[in-house]
Amino acid sequence: MGVGVGPGDPELMTLKAMRALAEADVIAHFAKAGNASHSRAIVAQHLRAGVTELPLLYPVTTELPTCSDGYRDALRDFYDAAAADIAAHLDAGRVVAVICEGDPLFYGSYMHLHARLAPRFSTEIVAGVTGMSGCWSAAGMPIAQGDDVFTVLPATLPEAELVRRLADADAAVVMKVGRHLPKLRRALARSNRLARAIYVERGTMADAKMIPLAEKPDDDASYFAVVLVPGWEERP
Amino acid sequence: MGVGVGPGDPELMTLKAMRALAEADVIAHFAKAGNASHSRAIVAQHLRAGVTELPLLYPVTTELPTCSDGYRDALRDFYDAAAADIAAHLDAGRVVAVICEGDPLFYGSYMHLHARLAPRFSTEIVAGVTGMSGCWSAAGMPIAQGDDVFTVLPATLPEAELVRRLADADAAVVMKVGRHLPKLRRALARSNRLARAIYVERGTMADAKMIPLAEKPDDDASYFAVVLVPGWEERP
Repeated sequence: MGVGVGPGDPELMTLKAMRALAEADVIAHFAKAGNASHSRAIVAQHLRAGVTELPLLYPVTTELPTCSDGYRDALRDFYDAAAADIAAHLDAGRVVAVICEGDPLFYGSYMHLHARLAPRFSTEIVAGVTGMSGCWSAAGMPIAQGDDVFTVLPATLPEAELVRRLADADAAVVMKVGRHLPKLRRALARSNRLARAIYVERGTMADAKMIPLAEKPDDDASYFAVVLVPGWEERP
Repeated sequence: MGVGVGPGDPELMTLKAMRALAEADVIAHFAKAGNASHSRAIVAQHLRAGVTELPLLYPVTTELPTCSDGYRDALRDFYDAAAADIAAHLDAGRVVAVICEGDPLFYGSYMHLHARLAPRFSTEIVAGVTGMSGCWSAAGMPIAQGDDVFTVLPATLPEAELVRRLADADAAVVMKVGRHLPKLRRALARSNRLARAIYVERGTMADAKMIPLAEKPDDDASYFAVVLVPGWEERP
């Protein structure tokens, strides 16, 4: 079972996610080795005493470029092993909830487990509030309406590609900003969207940071920051 | 306060939406005159006894083409009047929750009230699970991952524009399907996406209908149906 637990604020968990937590025998969560799991932090106050926890620790692959065969192989082995760990619990008749930040099937690691387990086991997905919804809600910024075309882009794209796609959409959210911020800023300026763009870091946390991108220095963007480009220029 | 109540299943409401309902003096909801409000149906079992309800009834504008000045004027007058009704409650010191299907700032009518009220009153947005998350979760279909470009398109676009945009995205959700289904089917075929496309109607309701679009007849698509085009062709 893939359980979306929302963008960060524990109050943005759904009633269905709460029930899934209460009913699960095993709570699995992804984390980087040595780091606390974000999804586990979101549900921490609702974990049943004595529930079995199954941390799924990403392999340390920072020494490999992400496009390399070695990186892909390491990830494949990791997802295979994680799916096997979960399958062992399922084979023993236990209910496993894999908790996921945001929504499980929207840019989530759970998808790799789902692809491996859904053919063999009955699965259920609990939809969650996405990180981007959390961000534009915290910013109080209407993002898209009516017949707007809305696009989600990774900041990893080449600059010319960002320019083309930003100019082609009415509204956009750019993810994975981090060290790509200077390139993204140029692309927003070239596509005439810089004035409307908002930089959001830790969107639904108590220490959220939201400022017009034009006022944000290039020096320290978070990998988890997003940039919102609202559409909605015509309105009744 | 704009309160997202999720895609339809009352269990996909957040804890924060529940608290907003419990604390509000007035619950406002959009509906078509003569039709039950979808958002009110979602929260029905959680409404406080004696809470004031404020239905906001869309003007009957089916006799006007949606691109006409008359339609735009009618809508503008409607949103102005709705905002004035809410402002009267706010001026009297009452807390008003405008309940919204899905997420309030993502293709929602609440945005028109927000634009009118946020400059004068303190506002809060409670993010919600979107209708599209509800649909792909009910279908158990991973939609986008990694560096996928994800796009939301209205089926109202011209066919050539749909073809171009579908071919240009890794993953897509097409909304407002209804009578545009034959055109959309042709556009999906021309952009080589028809085999992957799933038709979803009433995604998170008990009577949800989900079938490969290739097997769906053209005759009776709902205006509220969506078509999911999953990305995620490469995976570790």
